Amino acid sequence: MLRFGVLGAGRIGKVHARTIAASGKARVAYIADAMPKAAEELAAEVGAKVAAVDDIIRAGDVEAILIATPTPFHAEQIEAASNAGKAILCEKPVSLSVARIEDCLKTVAKNKSTLMIGFNRRFDPNFASLEKRLRAGAIGNIEMATIISRDPAPPPASYVKSSGGIFRDMMIHDLDLARFLVGEEFVTVQALGAALVDKAIGEEGDCDTAAVQMQTASGKIAVITNSRRASYGYDQRIEVHGSKGMLRAGNIHNTTVEVATAEGFNADPIQHFFTERYGQAYANEVLTFIDAVTNGTPVKPSGHDGLQAQKLADAATESWKTGKPVKVG
Amino acid sequence: MLRFGVLGAGRIGKVHARTIAASGKARVAYIADAMPKAAEELAAEVGAKVAAVDDIIRAGDVEAILIATPTPFHAEQIEAASNAGKAILCEKPVSLSVARIEDCLKTVAKNKSTLMIGFNRRFDPNFASLEKRLRAGAIGNIEMATIISRDPAPPPASYVKSSGGIFRDMMIHDLDLARFLVGEEFVTVQALGAALVDKAIGEEGDCDTAAVQMQTASGKIAVITNSRRASYGYDQRIEVHGSKGMLRAGNIHNTTVEVATAEGFNADPIQHFFTERYGQAYANEVLTFIDAVTNGTPVKPSGHDGLQAQKLADAATESWKTGKPVKVG
Amino acid sequence: MLRFGVLGAGRIGKVHARTIAASGKARVAYIADAMPKAAEELAAEVGAKVAAVDDIIRAGDVEAILIATPTPFHAEQIEAASNAGKAILCEKPVSLSVARIEDCLKTVAKNKSTLMIGFNRRFDPNFASLEKRLRAGAIGNIEMATIISRDPAPPPASYVKSSGGIFRDMMIHDLDLARFLVGEEFVTVQALGAALVDKAIGEEGDCDTAAVQMQTASGKIAVITNSRRASYGYDQRIEVHGSKGMLRAGNIHNTTVEVATAEGFNADPIQHFFTERYGQAYANEVLTFIDAVTNGTPVKPSGHDGLQAQKLADAATESWKTGKPVKVG
Amino acid sequence: MLRFGVLGAGRIGKVHARTIAASGKARVAYIADAMPKAAEELAAEVGAKVAAVDDIIRAGDVEAILIATPTPFHAEQIEAASNAGKAILCEKPVSLSVARIEDCLKTVAKNKSTLMIGFNRRFDPNFASLEKRLRAGAIGNIEMATIISRDPAPPPASYVKSSGGIFRDMMIHDLDLARFLVGEEFVTVQALGAALVDKAIGEEGDCDTAAVQMQTASGKIAVITNSRRASYGYDQRIEVHGSKGMLRAGNIHNTTVEVATAEGFNADPIQHFFTERYGQAYANEVLTFIDAVTNGTPVKPSGHDGLQAQKLADAATESWKTGKPVKVG
Repeated sequence: MLRFGVLGAGRIGKVHARTIAASGKARVAYIADAMPKAAEELAAEVGAKVAAVDDIIRAGDVEAILIATPTPFHAEQIEAASNAGKAILCEKPVSLSVARIEDCLKTVAKNKSTLMIGFNRRFDPNFASLEKRLRAGAIGNIEMATIISRDPAPPPASYVKSSGGIFRDMMIHDLDLARFLVGEEFVTVQALGAALVDKAIGEEGDCDTAAVQMQTASGKIAVITNSRRASYGYDQRIEVHGSKGMLRAGNIHNTTVEVATAEGFNADPIQHFFTERYGQAYANEVLTFIDAVTNGTPVKPSGHDGLQAQKLADAATESWKTGKPVKVG
Repeated sequence: MLRFGVLGAGRIGKVHARTIAASGKARVAYIADAMPKAAEELAAEVGAKVAAVDDIIRAGDVEAILIATPTPFHAEQIEAASNAGKAILCEKPVSLSVARIEDCLKTVAKNKSTLMIGFNRRFDPNFASLEKRLRAGAIGNIEMATIISRDPAPPPASYVKSSGGIFRDMMIHDLDLARFLVGEEFVTVQALGAALVDKAIGEEGDCDTAAVQMQTASGKIAVITNSRRASYGYDQRIEVHGSKGMLRAGNIHNTTVEVATAEGFNADPIQHFFTERYGQAYANEVLTFIDAVTNGTPVKPSGHDGLQAQKLADAATESWKTGKPVKVG
Repeated sequence: MLRFGVLGAGRIGKVHARTIAASGKARVAYIADAMPKAAEELAAEVGAKVAAVDDIIRAGDVEAILIATPTPFHAEQIEAASNAGKAILCEKPVSLSVARIEDCLKTVAKNKSTLMIGFNRRFDPNFASLEKRLRAGAIGNIEMATIISRDPAPPPASYVKSSGGIFRDMMIHDLDLARFLVGEEFVTVQALGAALVDKAIGEEGDCDTAAVQMQTASGKIAVITNSRRASYGYDQRIEVHGSKGMLRAGNIHNTTVEVATAEGFNADPIQHFFTERYGQAYANEVLTFIDAVTNGTPVKPSGHDGLQAQKLADAATESWKTGKPVKVG
Repeated sequence: MLRFGVLGAGRIGKVHARTIAASGKARVAYIADAMPKAAEELAAEVGAKVAAVDDIIRAGDVEAILIATPTPFHAEQIEAASNAGKAILCEKPVSLSVARIEDCLKTVAKNKSTLMIGFNRRFDPNFASLEKRLRAGAIGNIEMATIISRDPAPPPASYVKSSGGIFRDMMIHDLDLARFLVGEEFVTVQALGAALVDKAIGEEGDCDTAAVQMQTASGKIAVITNSRRASYGYDQRIEVHGSKGMLRAGNIHNTTVEVATAEGFNADPIQHFFTERYGQAYANEVLTFIDAVTNGTPVKPSGHDGLQAQKLADAATESWKTGKPVKVG
């Protein structure tokens, strides 16, 4: 029974705590949150105690720390947990600053800590199955990956202001997926963007509609498109083309019902947002971490993966702002 | 160049004459029709002469007779053409009377004439491909065939009166398809029907909504459902289940366009009726006949196939009217 | 908090007990099972006590009895629970004997007990959504319902022997669905069947491939086909055709992944069996029961629904054995 | 009856001549080809005379010139036909040189000639239907267009050498489609490319795998990806996302047959190449031209459309070669 300290009892913290409690392989020992009521309610639900962050990180009866606090706390909490000898599962991103991530990863490396970054989409059963088939050679050599990601509705412009922008806040998931699928590092990044959905987002210096194309040293290409709004649901698709064919994974409709009338054949909208679409992915992410820590096997995505995705997000942001391609080292 | 005499310049006669004229392997020498103007226009279009039915059947410069006249003329025209030594392609059915068909086939047998019956759906590229895979063992032993056939709109009740009823007029195509797919004779027929689309059809002693289930001596089952009306187009589907899996062939939408909005994902209605859906089937039917006659190879569907389908249609009609299963000999 | 006594700690008993325990609106107070170990394990998991069936039914701190014991115990346990004033959720069927069901329902009626029968498919989110749209008039007047149900693999012939046969054991779900969808009682039943999957099933006097067509007094038709084996998964489809169009609900593939190669486009098999496909349906069934009992509103499917489905299953069995249509009164 | 002179009796010349001959609204009066035999055979087939290019352009009994000669002849033949007062339908491109196109269009403008450029994909029934719905506002304001175009197999490297490169030879169709769909001019072009399919193509200075993203002055984005090879057929898809939803149009499979086995559900490969996929598009292009010339209405795509597509192709080529975004004026 792996004992967890869960930092953060917000939306994602709750999802993860419940997964741990129901896993049969681990349990939540402690929960911390800046809002005592949130911590208490979740602790009651999963049979844990409420404690302060520092106490949890130092607790002798905790082997693993799950970090689901706001982004600005991630790096320091990783460092503290690493120094305390804990295994760490941290929600993305480690930091909006590449330099800060690099610093943090030095501590992790020095301590040889186990650190997994919560890029949940790698654990979506559909995407994970697709990636497995890619690695097994189902379509031969990979040539191009295409990722479409559209949120159902834009966040308030106030959120956008502190988000780091669409490339760091939203597309970072797709940038990580592109690396996951293609299996090589991208060296060139070109970005386009515009505020077409909400002018207020543009006024905050961000965009809500974006396209990025990237290339690896060997010539492989990834194309990512994002929109902050889609009327028909949370649109999440990947497609990889290779020398022997194509692999793709699509969306899930709310039901399988189809109605045919004189107006045509109508299927339901697709699953509305990430809690529906990636519910299983969040669970699989945590279960994978538990198994890896329990068995002493390596974890993926690693801190390095978190760093690389952030570098690509920075490059995309710069490319969009300057109108020039950006090289990633 | 196989020379055809075409009897009947109506809708199907025109389609077939054009296929012959464009085939590069045959030509239309003569055309007959009770309406001189129809015969003349079609003759002009395909470079043929207008003549009387009897003269065409006897003409020395004609090797094949294509019969697309009204049903009551089919049997006698087959007999005359057979006696004149011509190869014959006759639109279904030979006759609404099984006894009359049997008589007619005796003449054909005596003369060893080539007679093909125009069950066009066997030549639909989708259905033909499915049948080929069935025969190649793609799903192992056949266990059950399911055929759905819905017309876009009901005929006028006046048409129904002289049509022989839904089983002989509409379902006969599906009864032939069931034999074509399953590859065995059906020995038991059970039918249900009702006039749900148009009460006037019921008043003519017919139904517009029907279901038939049939079984072969070895136990294989076919299930056919018909409706005289479907709001979303001409619904034509087949599915065969076997020991190793399932084969199915579906409909074709008017375009591949799909629109996704908050109301869901909408695809176009399916092709409207038989001229769109079975255009290629009609052409392939005639081209297959030309090749068989030219090469002296056997033709399918044969007069026997026409007879068997008619027996099943009679059995279904009787089962519907009596409420009892009917054995087919 | 509605307090449940759960009779039976087998596969379905477990599923239901977990749903109750996680509902937040009810809890499992007691569990009984002929196998003490099974009862104890499940009781430990959901925080219940183990007790004898009779004691549970009489317990003052139990308001609802969930019956998930073997079929032969259902009727007597319903009667006992009814006489003890409990609300009852009983897995289908009440009994394999229509006479026994009728007797049992007299007791239920006399006591005015709440009795819900566990036809889980009505609670499948896809089928439930389809039925709701039917009732809302999405396709106008209902004319024909088509239900396809294929298990992934046949049961052992030994199971078949005491199952009541395919119509009572497997098709009964589809017979209930047909009533649920069409909304009228069927008065005529015609059945065909054969043992094509496993000869040993035929030797037990049962069949493994079956087709039934039924008609209501107003002429509406239902067509049901069953197979005890499908290589590609648990095939569960419904389609309803009406005056304004068609509604259908289909299967769910294991993943959304599709691979395109020179051999074509390949999608995954569909969900393997009922625990995957109807997991949500089982949960929704129990939650619906809890809400109805808590709010004092009527439950569906009722004991009457269980009776009618059994009558149709008997009629189908008789029709198959005699080769004649059977009237249901 | 519009009288055509057809210049070029190669693959496309034949397709167009047959469409004209079968149109009922126009006829082919003369045909020219550098290969006399090709010209004679096609002339015989469609009832035309063979003549020299210059004579055809000057012929008093010709109103329209269809240019299907090799690309290097297009511009001068357009000019000659324009000076002779003929209406012109010219296969794409006018020239591989933007300067040459501009010169040519001056002549056309001076003479007020009717000139249509053969971007056939605009006339594909699926794409045309999608564009019509875009213009009708089906998805509100257009924000992003995505075009995927993959050939089934790469051309020989020898062809590539004189083709102008993938952006001018293959992607030009997609560049035109992007303008057609988005309805605004693109001002920024970013390209990536690599020779991943055939190293020999790379050695000729071209690439076989390419991605382009472009933006209009108002911020709308188009993303185009190309591959010179796809194992599963000729992959031609478009998708447009807007403020109210998404419109997309996909591929057509060889048949509608699907086979389900333990390995999954397999559909056929898609239509193999442009003669299958765009057969109807080629016909509709010519019929649209005939109607426009007959009725004196404007033609689209115009010479200006040809020029703009060529400018985008040049920009994409330059962007790929320099690694820098290119502005289009």
